Amino acid sequence: MFSHVKELQYNAKPSQPDPVYAKKLQEILGGQYGEMSVMMQYLFQGWNCRAESKYKDMILDIGTEEIAHVEMIATMIAQLLDGAPAHDQEQGAKDPAVEAVLGGMNPQHAIVNGLGAQPNDAAGYPWNARYTIASGNMLADFRANLNAESQGRLQVVRLYEMTTDPGVRDMLSFLIARDKMHQNQWMAAIEELEQTQGAVVPSTFSTEHEIQDVAYSFMNFSEGEESSTGRWANGASLDGKGTFEYVQNPGANGQKPELKPSPAYIHGTPP
Amino acid sequence: MFSHVKELQYNAKPSQPDPVYAKKLQEILGGQYGEMSVMMQYLFQGWNCRAESKYKDMILDIGTEEIAHVEMIATMIAQLLDGAPAHDQEQGAKDPAVEAVLGGMNPQHAIVNGLGAQPNDAAGYPWNARYTIASGNMLADFRANLNAESQGRLQVVRLYEMTTDPGVRDMLSFLIARDKMHQNQWMAAIEELEQTQGAVVPSTFSTEHEIQDVAYSFMNFSEGEESSTGRWANGASLDGKGTFEYVQNPGANGQKPELKPSPAYIHGTPP
Amino acid sequence: MFSHVKELQYNAKPSQPDPVYAKKLQEILGGQYGEMSVMMQYLFQGWNCRAESKYKDMILDIGTEEIAHVEMIATMIAQLLDGAPAHDQEQGAKDPAVEAVLGGMNPQHAIVNGLGAQPNDAAGYPWNARYTIASGNMLADFRANLNAESQGRLQVVRLYEMTTDPGVRDMLSFLIARDKMHQNQWMAAIEELEQTQGAVVPSTFSTEHEIQDVAYSFMNFSEGEESSTGRWANGASLDGKGTFEYVQNPGANGQKPELKPSPAYIHGTPP
Amino acid sequence: MFSHVKELQYNAKPSQPDPVYAKKLQEILGGQYGEMSVMMQYLFQGWNCRAESKYKDMILDIGTEEIAHVEMIATMIAQLLDGAPAHDQEQGAKDPAVEAVLGGMNPQHAIVNGLGAQPNDAAGYPWNARYTIASGNMLADFRANLNAESQGRLQVVRLYEMTTDPGVRDMLSFLIARDKMHQNQWMAAIEELEQTQGAVVPSTFSTEHEIQDVAYSFMNFSEGEESSTGRWANGASLDGKGTFEYVQNPGANGQKPELKPSPAYIHGTPP
Amino acid sequence: MFSHVKELQYNAKPSQPDPVYAKKLQEILGGQYGEMSVMMQYLFQGWNCRAESKYKDMILDIGTEEIAHVEMIATMIAQLLDGAPAHDQEQGAKDPAVEAVLGGMNPQHAIVNGLGAQPNDAAGYPWNARYTIASGNMLADFRANLNAESQGRLQVVRLYEMTTDPGVRDMLSFLIARDKMHQNQWMAAIEELEQTQGAVVPSTFSTEHEIQDVAYSFMNFSEGEESSTGRWANGASLDGKGTFEYVQNPGANGQKPELKPSPAYIHGTPP
Amino acid sequence: MFSHVKELQYNAKPSQPDPVYAKKLQEILGGQYGEMSVMMQYLFQGWNCRAESKYKDMILDIGTEEIAHVEMIATMIAQLLDGAPAHDQEQGAKDPAVEAVLGGMNPQHAIVNGLGAQPNDAAGYPWNARYTIASGNMLADFRANLNAESQGRLQVVRLYEMTTDPGVRDMLSFLIARDKMHQNQWMAAIEELEQTQGAVVPSTFSTEHEIQDVAYSFMNFSEGEESSTGRWANGASLDGKGTFEYVQNPGANGQKPELKPSPAYIHGTPP
Ligand SMILES: [Ca+2]
Ligand SMILES: [Ca+2]
Ligand SMILES: [Ca+2]
Ligand SMILES: [Ca+2]
Ligand SMILES: [Ca+2]
Ligand SMILES: [Ca+2]
Repeated sequence: MFSHVKELQYNAKPSQPDPVYAKKLQEILGGQYGEMSVMMQYLFQGWNCRAESKYKDMILDIGTEEIAHVEMIATMIAQLLDGAPAHDQEQGAKDPAVEAVLGGMNPQHAIVNGLGAQPNDAAGYPWNARYTIASGNMLADFRANLNAESQGRLQVVRLYEMTTDPGVRDMLSFLIARDKMHQNQWMAAIEELEQTQGAVVPSTFSTEHEIQDVAYSFMNFSEGEESSTGRWANGASLDGKGTFEYVQNPGANGQKPELKPSPAYIHGTPP
Repeated sequence: MFSHVKELQYNAKPSQPDPVYAKKLQEILGGQYGEMSVMMQYLFQGWNCRAESKYKDMILDIGTEEIAHVEMIATMIAQLLDGAPAHDQEQGAKDPAVEAVLGGMNPQHAIVNGLGAQPNDAAGYPWNARYTIASGNMLADFRANLNAESQGRLQVVRLYEMTTDPGVRDMLSFLIARDKMHQNQWMAAIEELEQTQGAVVPSTFSTEHEIQDVAYSFMNFSEGEESSTGRWANGASLDGKGTFEYVQNPGANGQKPELKPSPAYIHGTPP
Repeated sequence: MFSHVKELQYNAKPSQPDPVYAKKLQEILGGQYGEMSVMMQYLFQGWNCRAESKYKDMILDIGTEEIAHVEMIATMIAQLLDGAPAHDQEQGAKDPAVEAVLGGMNPQHAIVNGLGAQPNDAAGYPWNARYTIASGNMLADFRANLNAESQGRLQVVRLYEMTTDPGVRDMLSFLIARDKMHQNQWMAAIEELEQTQGAVVPSTFSTEHEIQDVAYSFMNFSEGEESSTGRWANGASLDGKGTFEYVQNPGANGQKPELKPSPAYIHGTPP
Repeated sequence: MFSHVKELQYNAKPSQPDPVYAKKLQEILGGQYGEMSVMMQYLFQGWNCRAESKYKDMILDIGTEEIAHVEMIATMIAQLLDGAPAHDQEQGAKDPAVEAVLGGMNPQHAIVNGLGAQPNDAAGYPWNARYTIASGNMLADFRANLNAESQGRLQVVRLYEMTTDPGVRDMLSFLIARDKMHQNQWMAAIEELEQTQGAVVPSTFSTEHEIQDVAYSFMNFSEGEESSTGRWANGASLDGKGTFEYVQNPGANGQKPELKPSPAYIHGTPP
Repeated sequence: MFSHVKELQYNAKPSQPDPVYAKKLQEILGGQYGEMSVMMQYLFQGWNCRAESKYKDMILDIGTEEIAHVEMIATMIAQLLDGAPAHDQEQGAKDPAVEAVLGGMNPQHAIVNGLGAQPNDAAGYPWNARYTIASGNMLADFRANLNAESQGRLQVVRLYEMTTDPGVRDMLSFLIARDKMHQNQWMAAIEELEQTQGAVVPSTFSTEHEIQDVAYSFMNFSEGEESSTGRWANGASLDGKGTFEYVQNPGANGQKPELKPSPAYIHGTPP
Repeated sequence: MFSHVKELQYNAKPSQPDPVYAKKLQEILGGQYGEMSVMMQYLFQGWNCRAESKYKDMILDIGTEEIAHVEMIATMIAQLLDGAPAHDQEQGAKDPAVEAVLGGMNPQHAIVNGLGAQPNDAAGYPWNARYTIASGNMLADFRANLNAESQGRLQVVRLYEMTTDPGVRDMLSFLIARDKMHQNQWMAAIEELEQTQGAVVPSTFSTEHEIQDVAYSFMNFSEGEESSTGRWANGASLDGKGTFEYVQNPGANGQKPELKPSPAYIHGTPP
């Protein structure tokens, strides 16, 4: 069960409205790697967690924090939209600077949301649940989480570069720091699990049911062999159980497929 | 530019048709973490690559391999659908075993695809491009790739457990081995990049624009402190630049938000 | 069965082209609360109607009218796009006013639709059927309809404020009036049903299978008690069968969830 | 900012696993009118609220409660999936009862989620943000909320009828009671606003810009006049400002549309 | 403007309920090539039509007919759902035949739609507007229409094979005939346009801006030359303006792409 | 199985960056009729092909070519984004020309993709698999393919008109030529199949199960008879088996639908 306090986790106060920037900021609210994604991903991982209770508690701690991040960014966007020129101004129609602003803002911010935030991304595309994963395998999911915090922090940093508003930058500085912690947090949890389980997900599948001779081979399917010089093609494999091999001309070892004609009731192409 | 050979990369020959299993197998073809996802993710990362050429070549090698994996699974599904009882059988309507099969298969396999594979997942939901990311930051993207190969192998292993067909299991054994290599490959590439850039994405953002005092704090937002016992709350941070701190009662340090009334032309709730 | 006459229900004649406004107007054509939504929602409610015939007839009357509204707005948009500067003009590239217009219009209007309307919203997002509901319970559905007409009229009014074109405003004045009637219509139908069935949907579920002691309690899950002063926390409940109660500190009365470890064939995190 | 306690708001304990029912229960978790929808709808309405503080507080109270409802249903689904026969059982393949269960469950519950809940509906379709609205006009939005609680309670009641498991029914009895309260709550808030603003959304648009002679007319666009006998076609309009009129043969008063040929650079059909 | 008559265009009367078949029949109602697709595609093509009035009239004739097809199928589905065993039957839970039916039906038909049709396909996926096209070029669009009627009739025929219910088959026999007419209709309209414009869309683009030496070459990008024996690789091209050429080893004639490093503010991978 | 060479099929070198045009060019990469659509459509048709091997080989030839087209356009877009003003420029904020550019570009190109191409269309909407079809009936599918190449070429031509950049135009000239060939190719394959099977899809359904008297009737459902003058209403039908008939007032020959009240457990509107 959850409860709410009115104060935000950190300040979300722009120095002045900027409806064009409001559109851009939607990306880290309702985008593929926005705060809604980590919020819902962590909450579902926590609720579905079948592992030790320290994991369940930890995941729900961070999931609960993320709701507060959604709240901060939504509040920021609403304020960036204050006074947005949604309203027709006859002279404005002739002023290219005003027109430019109108062109760069998201018209739904005015028409649909009455100068409020949307649960959408910077293209106006709605958030959806396929942005998230809760697989029941914690090592797999923590890798999803580390990725989400990496993509997320990258996007916040890019948005930091796109504004000079000190109030907006202040809030982003907080989110950038939290995303650093969250990357560190998932790296720590991953390290813990890899030490006990091994590095390959899932660790519980027997290698005897695996085609061993392709389990450590780098296959060169494109002309040119620059790829032979990387760590992935040389030395011990990262799971500590094999040695990387570079296969210059990987063969096609399967059948040449020939499907049966379809039965009459399917009305495929007649033979 | 690409070219095609007719032989599959590995065998894809079921011992017998099984339309119910065909529906399940769609998950690793057109699902969130299916082969279409890694194929398109790697191809776009390769085409957009602005880093050293060994990365571009390597990413396109693996992207090209993934097209062959999509091909193998599509071929397998088409064969699993051979002889599917799409056709009404009057006596069948009274035979619960036949009805059960009809209930468990995806009717679109017959109606829409004429006993062929779909670019969809096990729920019939179409593959879409928001399953992929190409951010231009290779460390971020390789973490996305490691996650995709981890979730993907987990799903293939679960599907292996759901069948006893030796032909299907043979193909899955190949994919499971390749997904092990691909996890190792991305771990190797990540290690290389972390050693030169540091572990936090992006590494190029100045820490002076980050709120330092929350950059290594684990915040306990849920009752109970089981989460305090994990690696993420104790010791040196994984980026080697800080020390984890456990904050038992994290405060709300932002403002209590109060938005301005909306302007008249927005027709919000009148004051 | 349906038939068509060529005249529109009301005029749809802009005074001059305005491709940027055409993009905005898409919201009330193919948006969440656009005319396509009410058209399809009412048609499906009518076709599925299992209640008295006066309801079926009434719902299909209004559903049929809505097709005419889609037609009017589509016609308007096509005319607003006449002469759109899709075409590159070399000097235009240096004229900020022309560039601004190009920036604010939807490029698909030219590339995909050849200066015609799209079945999409103002962000270019396609209309989809999850915008509609036909539940088989008329009181529930008439509330959906009243909501749709309320959100819809609000959006049309906002679009009225965003233009000064007298021809566009003339058409919107007609739609605004019809949406007023449609709000009144659904309020009337709701009143009729509430008087015979009661106000809570569904009215046919026995209260003995309901946890009675939380059926009229307002629960305060957020710090601060401003919410205690509203009508929803004081006096008789609106269904006439209870009394509102304000619960200042609502308790958590369920179990502390602990899920069983997953079975081996699921390959979750090993214990 | 938010915090979490481990106990659920109410019990969520099934008497026994039932993976087929788990699939159905997804509807009220991640469906169009599931708990995720009201949770996100209320949170965004609260964060964007520009009206009196008692509204903001009230909306966030109920939004915060809804997160707990999502949590309860997710927990229930995970338990209903305990022991799901995802695993191939050779003899099972011949037992129609087991096959039937396999046919009726959602295979993604095993393959993707490892016996955990999904943020999806009963068809496996992902939750998306276009299920919600926050328009900035409270009367409009409270009607959306009343609709959501009406559709939602109807679905929970139908699911109650589809099980005999006393533990599942116990949880549903709680949700059914809360949805009754929530319908009452929104009816109370609507009554308050209608008394001060009037019944038509938005109330602030001047009637002089509305085509008055169609503002209270019921138009009969379908053969047969059963619709003339309803309240919507007779007597005073519900906003208290007009009288309903029944128009038996509504005319087409607009132009017969003729669009200009498209310019050459559009490459439409040549004249 | 549109009007409605109560009688269906043709009978839609099943001999008996069949909820599993109802799920399948959704494909031709709300699927990619269902009646909703042709209805909306034709209506938008008609409303956007900038060509001769005989085309606009013809397109709207058929678009209006398609609304009646949606109506017939929706009515059929509602009747197929009469008496659906949505309701839990304790003994049923043990009867594999009843369970099988429950497994094969769409649970949303009961939970969401109260035994009514959905605007969705056979997988429960909602209809969306990207299934349609109105490009403003009639030859292009008539090819889209011919395709839609071809895919559509194929699906109806497959559904005909999946039932023995004489009432359902009667309705499908009507739709199969109309789809034959509609294929003929679009073929006729295409023939007319091709004779005046030529066969390649768009016909108005000057060939001097086209790389002529690849305009009639069949390129063999896959090992094996079975493809050399088709009409597409031999003889005069179908537009009457060239000769097909078979290119056995098509070359790569473009540059080897090398992208510039990204600027610092993008925070890509550091060089 | 596939392999890759580094050189592009044809040049993709813009003369200068143009981030606004990059947004538009996305349409033919990841739009409904973009190169991703034909690539995936052809690959799945090839993999599912149950007809003669010359078709399978031919379809995979062209499918493999289309991957190279995706590659060319992605490469072009990345270069058009070089130097995009994603970065805030204080003076720029006051320069309407720079603002206009910012307004017209897709902000996700910077925030999400770090100046790389997206698998999305010109509105930022992600590519999805419902854009494609592989029905198992080759005549149906080749009509889908002819349509795709017609819509696709039309869009490329429109994009050609929207730029004056000689490098961009050079690449488009290549694509326009290939789309001409591909239209010719599908026309040739269609002609071949129509000659052996007949023109109506599917040709294998017995006409005795079709309502013959509506199989060649053009029905006039809209006021005005301009549609009577087309080829579709006069003369021999295009399949050579009937004669077109114009029905001026098509009747409604079905029942007036009356659905049964819903059962109690559905909780519909009470009678
Ligand atoms: Ca290589
Ligand atoms: Ca805790
Ligand atoms: Ca409160
Ligand atoms: Ca009527
Ligand atoms: Ca070949
Ligand atoms: Ca006509």
